[in-house]
Amino acid sequence: MVEYDAVVVGAGIIGLATAYHIKKLRPQSRVLVIDKMNTAGQGNTAKSAAMFRCFFNSQTNLTLVDTTVEAFKHIQNQQGLDIKLRWTGYLWLFSKEQFRTLEPVLKSMAESNLEYNVYEAEELTKQLNLNTQVMVDEEARVMRLADVDKGIFIPKAGSVDIDLVVQFYEEEFKKLGGEIRYNTKAEKILVEPKEALEIPYEPFFWQESRVAGVKTNQGTIKAKKTIVAAGVWANTLLHQIGIYAPMVPIKRQLFSVKATATKLKQLLKTKGFNSENCMPFTILPKPAVYIKPALEEKAFWLSYGDHFPRAFKLEDDPQPEENFYRYGIYQVVSKYFPQFLGAHSDSYWAGQYALNTIDGQPVLFAENDLLVVGSCSGSGNMKCDAIGRIAAALYVGEKQANLYGGKKFMVSNLGMTSRKVEPEKLII
Amino acid sequence: MVEYDAVVVGAGIIGLATAYHIKKLRPQSRVLVIDKMNTAGQGNTAKSAAMFRCFFNSQTNLTLVDTTVEAFKHIQNQQGLDIKLRWTGYLWLFSKEQFRTLEPVLKSMAESNLEYNVYEAEELTKQLNLNTQVMVDEEARVMRLADVDKGIFIPKAGSVDIDLVVQFYEEEFKKLGGEIRYNTKAEKILVEPKEALEIPYEPFFWQESRVAGVKTNQGTIKAKKTIVAAGVWANTLLHQIGIYAPMVPIKRQLFSVKATATKLKQLLKTKGFNSENCMPFTILPKPAVYIKPALEEKAFWLSYGDHFPRAFKLEDDPQPEENFYRYGIYQVVSKYFPQFLGAHSDSYWAGQYALNTIDGQPVLFAENDLLVVGSCSGSGNMKCDAIGRIAAALYVGEKQANLYGGKKFMVSNLGMTSRKVEPEKLII
Repeated sequence: MVEYDAVVVGAGIIGLATAYHIKKLRPQSRVLVIDKMNTAGQGNTAKSAAMFRCFFNSQTNLTLVDTTVEAFKHIQNQQGLDIKLRWTGYLWLFSKEQFRTLEPVLKSMAESNLEYNVYEAEELTKQLNLNTQVMVDEEARVMRLADVDKGIFIPKAGSVDIDLVVQFYEEEFKKLGGEIRYNTKAEKILVEPKEALEIPYEPFFWQESRVAGVKTNQGTIKAKKTIVAAGVWANTLLHQIGIYAPMVPIKRQLFSVKATATKLKQLLKTKGFNSENCMPFTILPKPAVYIKPALEEKAFWLSYGDHFPRAFKLEDDPQPEENFYRYGIYQVVSKYFPQFLGAHSDSYWAGQYALNTIDGQPVLFAENDLLVVGSCSGSGNMKCDAIGRIAAALYVGEKQANLYGGKKFMVSNLGMTSRKVEPEKLII
Repeated sequence: MVEYDAVVVGAGIIGLATAYHIKKLRPQSRVLVIDKMNTAGQGNTAKSAAMFRCFFNSQTNLTLVDTTVEAFKHIQNQQGLDIKLRWTGYLWLFSKEQFRTLEPVLKSMAESNLEYNVYEAEELTKQLNLNTQVMVDEEARVMRLADVDKGIFIPKAGSVDIDLVVQFYEEEFKKLGGEIRYNTKAEKILVEPKEALEIPYEPFFWQESRVAGVKTNQGTIKAKKTIVAAGVWANTLLHQIGIYAPMVPIKRQLFSVKATATKLKQLLKTKGFNSENCMPFTILPKPAVYIKPALEEKAFWLSYGDHFPRAFKLEDDPQPEENFYRYGIYQVVSKYFPQFLGAHSDSYWAGQYALNTIDGQPVLFAENDLLVVGSCSGSGNMKCDAIGRIAAALYVGEKQANLYGGKKFMVSNLGMTSRKVEPEKLII
């Protein structure tokens, strides 16, 4: 039987970025990616809002995202593949109370030369027809909304077409000689004793064992290193062999609203914020419902990342809930942006995050010839290039990864035994 | 409908200790314990080895265990309930290499006045007929055993009859007016909006919600505070509402060997270590198989806490694996203690730990009127009184818990947001 140097479970954005960067570091290695779907990026990668922002107070977040976005720019500009980078910016709206809490954080971020502009409520009303004084409304009070006091505009932020990024990594990986098998579902991780005695009931607990590949619905695949980059599905495999990655699956839903009504058309084409001449990606103060300008489709994508009492429950095909839009997102958005009054969502979908409830950061570690790359907590897309490089460094045994642009990153900082990540204070 | 002050899910040792200490702190509170079984302590509490040792390098462990053992002594001596405290001591066997690594740890523990005695290999051979030179044997080398270099004897250690401790907490809780309902299975945690609008589809995400009790197979129970102390079953309930407690279930097996053969009888009755005039609880160097003298039954209980590739898999009725004894424990034990040659196990059982893979310590936190008490990682029995008191302090909103003997313990040290526990270096 062929023994691969590495088998990567999962052809989502993280699995493919990992496989590509392994191939780049070790061109002679025989690397195979497998996925249960029939093409790349068809799991939760495809379901995301595909936004990015180079604006975090945690250095970990900032480094992972900023180097990835620079890699995106390189793909778009130097490698000549149009991955539809759109520099919409982020417009983050805050109540007076929220802004007071965040002010010191923002100041220290300004000192690190992170660019942002503060907008006063009146300017926002003028530019966006934003209703900043929602609390005069009885319903808004019942819903516990909050008046908008300020907006923070973050210019180095926007969207990308994640399918095209997936395609990029897949094609480049294949050009380097990488192999992919679709319709191949990992069912079990293969464990063997390091030194087999060839007697029944191996491995015994007094033997040292290692991961030797994966059993799939298409047969067993042997590999020197097995890399699980299966997102929310990772623990289904890992728990079978007593490996723990801190992550729980949580559903996220997106609702698309077409900008057909005049007022919505105007809102989408808001000028003055960015070079795209569009409304920025906008986050409401409370609850933090967000609105993405989906320029290609002349639409808005609306979402809200709810927590308690939202279940942690693994689903292969999570379904969006119409009531989540009708009695939730719509009610909130139309108070702040009356332009949405009467707007229906004509298409919607749902996916799942692999949420690391401990610190919200990715987890990468190696043990017993198994590598785990995951727990990206919903920001895997905007960190994909950096995570792929860190995973490749872990694979070759380097202590530091070279991120795009030459920045170094300590691999063990994202591990479980000497983990070192700062808490992020700017979360949606 | 009656609204209890507190409903405790789980009548295992942790649930009952918690309920009892809540009642002690708040005699007027109406407290109900529910359990799916038909009597107390029938889950994994009943499956444990029921050992304790007041010997840890982590202050957290030491405090939790030492105060609990003092509480056990009080129950046995002052309250006059024979819970069968047996001061067998722990005899921990180490190879030369292991001992070298541990020596600094042991020294610092000696400086904290933790009592232990070091035994040389020859003394151990003389007293126990221990085979310290296993590695002359070809099979032992294949099995990667290790010669015994030293033994550490820990006097403040032994066993307790955990069923009797369970009974104690149950009866004392009931004497204080506590209520218990058996055959009552919590199926779902009840979530309600804090301020209900009495319209369909509540709660909405813009409403504040809280835990308002539990739905059981015997109907809904409402409570001001809901306390989940359900051990390995906790996450089944918690994940339904997006609450995360770091724990995975892992199977543990115990095999009882009757001391009928003369050599085993002699071994069980080993003198010179303790006032029970018995073999101490003994931990082998590698792999760390352990042997408990089960005096009441004139037997030994043997076990080994295996990890990778042992699955994390929740089971209501985990089964012991005969091969785990035959090809695992038996093979190892009989190399070190030839007295076990030919010994069969005539009774065996299995349970599950709620293993906190992050730091192996219990987890206690409160949010949205829900309290979580768990992740005891296999040492819940020897920490039960302290954990019950800390849970009760959390319930009444005290920052510090009063442990048995008056020692204070910061409740938040075992929480998730400002957790503070030292890593334990002396683990089996």
